[in-house]
Amino acid sequence: ALLCAQLVSEAEIPEPPLFTSTHRWEDTPEQNVSLTKPGLSPAERVREAVDCLPTRLESPLAADVPPSSSLKRWTIMDFSRAYSSGETTPVQVAKRFLAAVKECSGPTMNMAFFISCDPEDVLKQAEESTLRYQTGTPLSVMDGVLVAVKDEIDCLPYPTTGGTRWLGKARPCEADAACVAQLRACGAVLAGKTNMHELGAGTSGINPHHGSARNPYNVGKVAGGSSSGSAAVVCAGLCPVALGVDGGGSVRMPAALCGVVGFKPTAGRLSNAGVLPLNWTVGMAGILAGTVEDAVVAYSAIVDQSQPSYLRPELNLPMLTSTPSISNVRLAKYGKWFNDSSEDIRTCCDKALQTLRAQYGWETLDVTVPEIEEMRLAHYVTIGSECTASLAKYLDKLKRSEIGWDVRVALGVYGSFSSRAYLNSQRLRNRQMFFHKEIFKTADVIVSPMTGVTAYTLQDDALSSGELDYINGAALIRYSIAGNFLGLPAITVMVGQDKGGLPIGLQFIGRPWSEATLLHIAFAMQEACSKNHRKPVVFYDLLKKD
Amino acid sequence: ALLCAQLVSEAEIPEPPLFTSTHRWEDTPEQNVSLTKPGLSPAERVREAVDCLPTRLESPLAADVPPSSSLKRWTIMDFSRAYSSGETTPVQVAKRFLAAVKECSGPTMNMAFFISCDPEDVLKQAEESTLRYQTGTPLSVMDGVLVAVKDEIDCLPYPTTGGTRWLGKARPCEADAACVAQLRACGAVLAGKTNMHELGAGTSGINPHHGSARNPYNVGKVAGGSSSGSAAVVCAGLCPVALGVDGGGSVRMPAALCGVVGFKPTAGRLSNAGVLPLNWTVGMAGILAGTVEDAVVAYSAIVDQSQPSYLRPELNLPMLTSTPSISNVRLAKYGKWFNDSSEDIRTCCDKALQTLRAQYGWETLDVTVPEIEEMRLAHYVTIGSECTASLAKYLDKLKRSEIGWDVRVALGVYGSFSSRAYLNSQRLRNRQMFFHKEIFKTADVIVSPMTGVTAYTLQDDALSSGELDYINGAALIRYSIAGNFLGLPAITVMVGQDKGGLPIGLQFIGRPWSEATLLHIAFAMQEACSKNHRKPVVFYDLLKKD
Repeated sequence: ALLCAQLVSEAEIPEPPLFTSTHRWEDTPEQNVSLTKPGLSPAERVREAVDCLPTRLESPLAADVPPSSSLKRWTIMDFSRAYSSGETTPVQVAKRFLAAVKECSGPTMNMAFFISCDPEDVLKQAEESTLRYQTGTPLSVMDGVLVAVKDEIDCLPYPTTGGTRWLGKARPCEADAACVAQLRACGAVLAGKTNMHELGAGTSGINPHHGSARNPYNVGKVAGGSSSGSAAVVCAGLCPVALGVDGGGSVRMPAALCGVVGFKPTAGRLSNAGVLPLNWTVGMAGILAGTVEDAVVAYSAIVDQSQPSYLRPELNLPMLTSTPSISNVRLAKYGKWFNDSSEDIRTCCDKALQTLRAQYGWETLDVTVPEIEEMRLAHYVTIGSECTASLAKYLDKLKRSEIGWDVRVALGVYGSFSSRAYLNSQRLRNRQMFFHKEIFKTADVIVSPMTGVTAYTLQDDALSSGELDYINGAALIRYSIAGNFLGLPAITVMVGQDKGGLPIGLQFIGRPWSEATLLHIAFAMQEACSKNHRKPVVFYDLLKKD
Repeated sequence: ALLCAQLVSEAEIPEPPLFTSTHRWEDTPEQNVSLTKPGLSPAERVREAVDCLPTRLESPLAADVPPSSSLKRWTIMDFSRAYSSGETTPVQVAKRFLAAVKECSGPTMNMAFFISCDPEDVLKQAEESTLRYQTGTPLSVMDGVLVAVKDEIDCLPYPTTGGTRWLGKARPCEADAACVAQLRACGAVLAGKTNMHELGAGTSGINPHHGSARNPYNVGKVAGGSSSGSAAVVCAGLCPVALGVDGGGSVRMPAALCGVVGFKPTAGRLSNAGVLPLNWTVGMAGILAGTVEDAVVAYSAIVDQSQPSYLRPELNLPMLTSTPSISNVRLAKYGKWFNDSSEDIRTCCDKALQTLRAQYGWETLDVTVPEIEEMRLAHYVTIGSECTASLAKYLDKLKRSEIGWDVRVALGVYGSFSSRAYLNSQRLRNRQMFFHKEIFKTADVIVSPMTGVTAYTLQDDALSSGELDYINGAALIRYSIAGNFLGLPAITVMVGQDKGGLPIGLQFIGRPWSEATLLHIAFAMQEACSKNHRKPVVFYDLLKKD
């Protein structure tokens, strides 16, 4: 037993486990899709994505200034056009961005969006981009566009802290993560490393080490987690796009709480290279964006087409050239689960479904998703066990006091699981995949609220100690699990605001590899209801005319 | 935690875990191969296999009777020709078989080859087969050929005991396992359920519940395990072929101890349907046969071609029409490991390699296989954890006294592993796969002794209590792990006998999906040294002229 502990249980092993939980490619026909062959560069894929975007007639800067209370988000295309036309430059935008970051990071606002942001590095990238526009050689429409990166993803010149005090030193960041390198190849200006829940092991985004990312809609509320900073910067208009990592809803939950788009593709669609290995089979990078169009562009840039073809032969991008861009969508709804949310959320999400029916004729089917609580626990055993095995080489040597209270408790539970519990969790996983496949035989997507509650109050005493709030935590994570545990693609879009003005997100969960369908539906939803959204309290307009 | 136990750790879940450890197909070119397209029936595949066999000029029954001390094994083709020519019938052979089983099961010999064998069922099958030969419609060359099945594989009309007293009742056998159904479709006469180590959880084959299969070369020695009965019946001439299950060498070890061919294909090559789920990622059915030719025929019958094409598009069968049937084979040998065996084994296996060099010019390369002890422990954690999770629903309700002492100890250890140990084992698995792939860049196969010791003494007191012999157990399993933990195909052939006349097996381990190459090499080895093998003490000649 001692030998076994030394050679196996406590051994330092650089490799991930030899098994995959990803889905084989299934060629389910999708409507109105542009298929992109493997072998293109990120910039070439972005060019294909641009061809899929709706044609907006108005030039953004020439358009009437909307009423100050309503929300107008600049898209990647807006930035690209403004740079190309010379109305502004990446340097000008970067300077505004850095000023805004300085302002809201200061002691007065204390928004704690970023763990690190190096003004010199941001400006240098912006200068190079500006030069490319001046010589007429921008790399893609993303050239000069600011993209923030969750501090769980490697991005030079920053350390990757994972929201801790110590991991950035224990594990040096030596190269860009694959998805970051792809964005860089498109000319994006990497805008810094966003705040997150420590080790991704919580959903509030409250971080006792780096401050807590506050919600731009209400600075007294949480931004949600674990990709709190990425959701907040997009919400506050600082970047049209940010990267997050989603192991248990960690992209989609904060996106919903901050009223932005949160998009997690099918497991295996993006490379995990350079993403902190906090687990192996449930987490992956995801996109936070102000609009569905921007999610499409960023997605086309960071897709991984280097993997074997049985996983994903061609990239399916949605042709968003009409509204709705697809027809006869069948939405599966499990009423009991759907309604297990606050009254405002229930009402708002129901109204969104009614809008889809009224505007596009899309029907809702009643279904049952069995054993949801079992799935949640099995996911918890899985992510906890994998986190323990992966981080053990650091945690075994670490003083407990380096870790926040709430994460210390989580790690204690994570380390207690037996191999039997882990294996049974993988059996439940198989069983749930079967249940979901049955649903997808009659429905295109499953629809649910994204969270059971809207952004809740950031308690003053939580700021320094962290917080363990099982009630709100459970309500936040309630609808996230299938996306991670089953590797299904999922997206959330803002569909309204609660009585306090806090955003409410609706979620669509798709069958494996059906990202195009998901983006079509999210786009239709956005088009049907975004006109009524009010602006966050903390909001920066980086393209505004002086 | 209680909820987690109820819903996950101790839940009854019918599904296996959602992950695969199988190998993607890699199209490594192989010499002298007949490729069989998917879609053929088992009998059609057997026809293709027959075309691959060497042409033996002599008619078996007309041939000179060999000296009584030397070994002549009747092959499937021998039985088929004798049936077709009318020299004998399946009924006549079945009657001889049943008389032999009766004799050696009796209190005098007490060989305990079978856990169950129903004379009526065997005779009925033989009669149907005889009728087919009389009407000129045999289903394949396997028609009327006796095949014994390890009692870990479902085969009607028998219960599947897994070597226990209780599992046959707790888990009713409702249909033939996939591989058994395929053999039945070829006309094979399913000859009964062979003895095995209880739950496959040991390597001696000593079974306190069903008696211990004795070694036909020396009835005072073990047959090896866990497929003890299957190895012994083939050794004793009772069946040319038997099925076993190999989760940690359980086909190959007893094959080596009994001097027969033991063949475990690549993980994923055979269906697991109807094999007791004692684990999910290391075990699979395998073939015990008197000759390599018979292994080829049986293999072609039981291959599973219904799986997705990224696993295995075409079946590669070796064309054994010349000797050697391939050239320039490169054999990798790790000297330190190779020599970690008894002197007789070391000497004999080295001599076998010299023979390959002298007769065929095949060279041996020196390689290192790192971390073999780590691999063994990681395999142990894996098989133990999976066994625990899989059998929990039975074991939790079982009285400990129903289980033999040695297996009780094993199950105690199996149940103690953490999810961290399990996950780290899967990481070591990935690491070892890398090491082995490196070796296969310069070598076609890895060669090793099959076991570190030959058949050891069956202690009288072990017969009723079972036995836990870690020293001999470790020596037996030493060379088996890569075949299971990495899913590599592996085969053992008898290459000589120790000073006491006990068989010695050499093992060849191949790259994924290279079964044809492995069978070519095993055939060449057999042709080079089988003439010197002496006959087992307990041996039945079912085709002898009266």
